[in-house]
Amino acid sequence: MRGQLSIVGMGPGDPELLTLKAARVIAAAPCVAFFAKRGRMGHARSIAGERIGHDAELLRFEYPFTTELSVADPRYLSDIGLFYERCAGLLAERLAGGTDVALLCEGDPFFYGSAMYLFDRLRYEFPHQIIPGITGMSGCWSAADLPFTHGDDVLQVLPGTLDRQHLAARLALGDAAVIMKVGGNFPKIRAALDDAGLIERAVYVEYGTMPGERIWPMSMIEHPAPDAPYFSMILVPGRQGRR
Amino acid sequence: MRGQLSIVGMGPGDPELLTLKAARVIAAAPCVAFFAKRGRMGHARSIAGERIGHDAELLRFEYPFTTELSVADPRYLSDIGLFYERCAGLLAERLAGGTDVALLCEGDPFFYGSAMYLFDRLRYEFPHQIIPGITGMSGCWSAADLPFTHGDDVLQVLPGTLDRQHLAARLALGDAAVIMKVGGNFPKIRAALDDAGLIERAVYVEYGTMPGERIWPMSMIEHPAPDAPYFSMILVPGRQGRR
Repeated sequence: MRGQLSIVGMGPGDPELLTLKAARVIAAAPCVAFFAKRGRMGHARSIAGERIGHDAELLRFEYPFTTELSVADPRYLSDIGLFYERCAGLLAERLAGGTDVALLCEGDPFFYGSAMYLFDRLRYEFPHQIIPGITGMSGCWSAADLPFTHGDDVLQVLPGTLDRQHLAARLALGDAAVIMKVGGNFPKIRAALDDAGLIERAVYVEYGTMPGERIWPMSMIEHPAPDAPYFSMILVPGRQGRR
Repeated sequence: MRGQLSIVGMGPGDPELLTLKAARVIAAAPCVAFFAKRGRMGHARSIAGERIGHDAELLRFEYPFTTELSVADPRYLSDIGLFYERCAGLLAERLAGGTDVALLCEGDPFFYGSAMYLFDRLRYEFPHQIIPGITGMSGCWSAADLPFTHGDDVLQVLPGTLDRQHLAARLALGDAAVIMKVGGNFPKIRAALDDAGLIERAVYVEYGTMPGERIWPMSMIEHPAPDAPYFSMILVPGRQGRR
């Protein structure tokens, strides 16, 4: 009997935004795996808190990079590929031995989540279930009191890594937009919002749903806090034809 | 003391995909409100099941339309405006009297949810909290085993009400797309996917995470089930530069 792989969405940060299903699966899992940045506990792990069984085996997968490289960088592609191979191998050993595994993933696993790369490598060999999670963007627009899309609005989710011209052109096309991967791209994103005439509508959210949450109109800030590159996003609500 | 308005995201349909916070707030609320289509129990209400307190007052807000009119239709705008005014008035009475109210909303409240229109009318007068929910799209791509966006992918959420040319042009622009409001727009959406060369990548999901869930490659179906116009969407996964 092979074990089951559960890929568990952990939501945006507030531990109470776990689903009932996620809480049940985490508490029952004899093996719990999660990704972590070097020197950190791991955000998904910290959301789980005391829910993990005391006897559970913990597998901590530490990313080989301390800062995020571009996915286009050849070093990134080769190193990260080897890393995911190794992680998948460790899970495969447990699953092949009949042990169920819960792989924790911040936000929603299939929405920009690293767990996808392990799923790719294990899906045809082992039974599995994907437990969706609250996305970071839902957490942020809810925390910011910002009704986001209605009626026939188009929503675009854009990486802040796009260049200024592309970003501005994209922003001009849609009704609502979420800009992820803000970090060091902040000045460029701010310029693109300005090009598209959207500074007044845009809202910056840092640590949404978490301790340290900060919400600012883009028109009121020049720079984000230097220590919040990852847990931040910029929201441009739709609903311009509001009723 | 005024009561607190909690707008509660109920997730995509599976009652176990409620958040811990939603379950807690629903169980404690002395008044629970929800929208329902004519002749139906109300989808958000049915997800809540037995979690609502036995002594809670239930407010059922029945939409004045049986089928969805375009938001551009003048009748829609006037009638629905009056409807939301009336609903907000009923909630305001309870809140002004010091009663906490939980307003249930399928999916995520600020993502195409009707609860936004009551929030607009009550937000400045009453204390409130928005509890985000799992979106229908997260529920569907998880149920369909469909890792959706990674790295620098752009995601577009498109209403199926767009005309064929606009839909095809939009689809050609992005990496990943979710098409909502499928229903009677199915043949047009299928044609637009064909125009954009995306039929082979697209997946149709009906009743995602619910009893009756059906998942089909678009290339294999001509028409959806005639009774599933609302709980259906079409998914075009990104990750074409997969690693």
